[in-house]
Amino acid sequence: MKATVIHGPRDIRFEEVPDPRIELPTDAIVKVHTSCICGSDLWPYRGDDETTEPHTIGHECLGVVEEVGADVRDVRPGDFVIVPFDHCDNTCSACRNGAHSACENLGMTRSGQAEYARVTQADGSLVKTDGVPDADLVPSLMTLSDVMATGWHAAVSAGVRRGGTAVVVGDGAVGLCGVLAASQLGAETVIAMSRHEPRQELARRFGATHVVAERGKEGVAAVKEILGGVGGDAVLECVGNGPAFEQAFRVARPGATVGMVGVPHGVEAPLRVMFSKNVGLAGGMAPVRRYLPDLLERVLRREIDPGLVFDLTLPLDQVAEGYRAMDERTAIKVLLQP
Amino acid sequence: MKATVIHGPRDIRFEEVPDPRIELPTDAIVKVHTSCICGSDLWPYRGDDETTEPHTIGHECLGVVEEVGADVRDVRPGDFVIVPFDHCDNTCSACRNGAHSACENLGMTRSGQAEYARVTQADGSLVKTDGVPDADLVPSLMTLSDVMATGWHAAVSAGVRRGGTAVVVGDGAVGLCGVLAASQLGAETVIAMSRHEPRQELARRFGATHVVAERGKEGVAAVKEILGGVGGDAVLECVGNGPAFEQAFRVARPGATVGMVGVPHGVEAPLRVMFSKNVGLAGGMAPVRRYLPDLLERVLRREIDPGLVFDLTLPLDQVAEGYRAMDERTAIKVLLQP
Repeated sequence: MKATVIHGPRDIRFEEVPDPRIELPTDAIVKVHTSCICGSDLWPYRGDDETTEPHTIGHECLGVVEEVGADVRDVRPGDFVIVPFDHCDNTCSACRNGAHSACENLGMTRSGQAEYARVTQADGSLVKTDGVPDADLVPSLMTLSDVMATGWHAAVSAGVRRGGTAVVVGDGAVGLCGVLAASQLGAETVIAMSRHEPRQELARRFGATHVVAERGKEGVAAVKEILGGVGGDAVLECVGNGPAFEQAFRVARPGATVGMVGVPHGVEAPLRVMFSKNVGLAGGMAPVRRYLPDLLERVLRREIDPGLVFDLTLPLDQVAEGYRAMDERTAIKVLLQP
Repeated sequence: MKATVIHGPRDIRFEEVPDPRIELPTDAIVKVHTSCICGSDLWPYRGDDETTEPHTIGHECLGVVEEVGADVRDVRPGDFVIVPFDHCDNTCSACRNGAHSACENLGMTRSGQAEYARVTQADGSLVKTDGVPDADLVPSLMTLSDVMATGWHAAVSAGVRRGGTAVVVGDGAVGLCGVLAASQLGAETVIAMSRHEPRQELARRFGATHVVAERGKEGVAAVKEILGGVGGDAVLECVGNGPAFEQAFRVARPGATVGMVGVPHGVEAPLRVMFSKNVGLAGGMAPVRRYLPDLLERVLRREIDPGLVFDLTLPLDQVAEGYRAMDERTAIKVLLQP
């Protein structure tokens, strides 16, 4: 099949690789209908994560089941499915506790930006739609594979509650989905920290009541001014690097929780500050399957439209162009279709 | 007055110092009836925290109000009061959010192991009893100044819930109070990690359903065997050093929360593990005033007897002997009376 392969920093090629195949009886092969590029794909793209040898990349996709292993019962060839980037059995102790991303049988989509993807734990992971969805719903359904579920997890982990206040650090697609999640979960004040006009506009559309363009000390002061002198009840950390972590803890009120969903890169938790302010840190890799049924309903009822995070659509074979656009921040998030 | 003064590592003297006095109209001076030595007093005693110049030490006490500032309304000279180690106004935004230990007007008891102590924010901080309490209740009331409230905060921060499981790391007085708190909060399984027989016995008396004497890998294996192969729902970290932190995260199940109450010393949060297992970290310095009315009721109704953590009582002027006993772990916690 043709697939996106990363060879090293800024070296993305769409090229021929072996077809994925059923390896375990719980596997399925999905023919990819739509995929996209994740902010976390930029870590290896920028060389912040090392690529020791060329490998397929891309972990977000939607598609049609092509083939299933002998033990798969709940999905059949021909089913249109949403593929959580993190595969899980949905039955183990971790899954029963809502920590599907630490499933005892955890798997990952390894060739989402390709013609076919292997899904381990097909029954536990895949969620079917009722036939092929309306074309206008596809972008929003696509976000349920990772980014919208991840933004939702940031909000849940940060303890967003009805009538409370939320501050979102990071205006990438995850941060914007975090704004949407905080708003849907009933936060009365939702502050998006963003310096980029198109992203600010989308944040407002997703329910941000305020936008703060300043960063650092000025950003903290601006947030506190909006919140009557204190920090946020819930802070969504949607980046994962040092400056974002620092910003997040500085805009948290005493007793607040920072919900983290950006893979930590070169970061330390400020334990002394956390201790003296009683600010907690929760979250991690999103348990996508946990939120998927609820989020699917919200999309199908057209209550939320997270697909608006896609501001560039490219044919799959132009995937390298998509990486370039996201790296240069000329696109928020890139949708890929055959 | 006579007070306990630390001059440097292992140099504790009971000597004459200036009397504390009303400095602000919100202050009160308390004549100390009972005090005690805290595990955190051992940090400077052992030289782990530097003592740059001699100063009074001790932050836990009970006593009788001697004098109040002009703005104090709710306590009067003659009232018997419990003194939270962290003084707060009980009205600011942090206090209203339950984070009294990050009060905008935070103060600290500085001469608890002395004849008199100054309490800033007297109205917000002090909780009166109905006259001088029965002598047998005094040790338990003494624990409400810090250690019992701190153990309670560990349990609350770790998210202990009815029917859940809890693991307590640390068998000092705080850890033992954490066991009592987890049990009172309804955890069905409470595992105390302790190697010392008298502390194990007290843990059981406080509601531990299991005791694990092993540490490190063996300790993790023993905890998981009790809990059906997984870690605890709630983990109480009651020490604050590196080995305890590591132990705490290793006995936490995916999706669990570690509640920390030991001042972090030379510790880093294991962010990558937290991220991949979705294990949160919460807690910090205990908001004593928040829990005090409830804990007072439990003591007065004789439902809990946290005063059992005191296994050595000394006259105040033998305070240096008390430090030595706690440092050498021949005593769990030392009560000091005139």
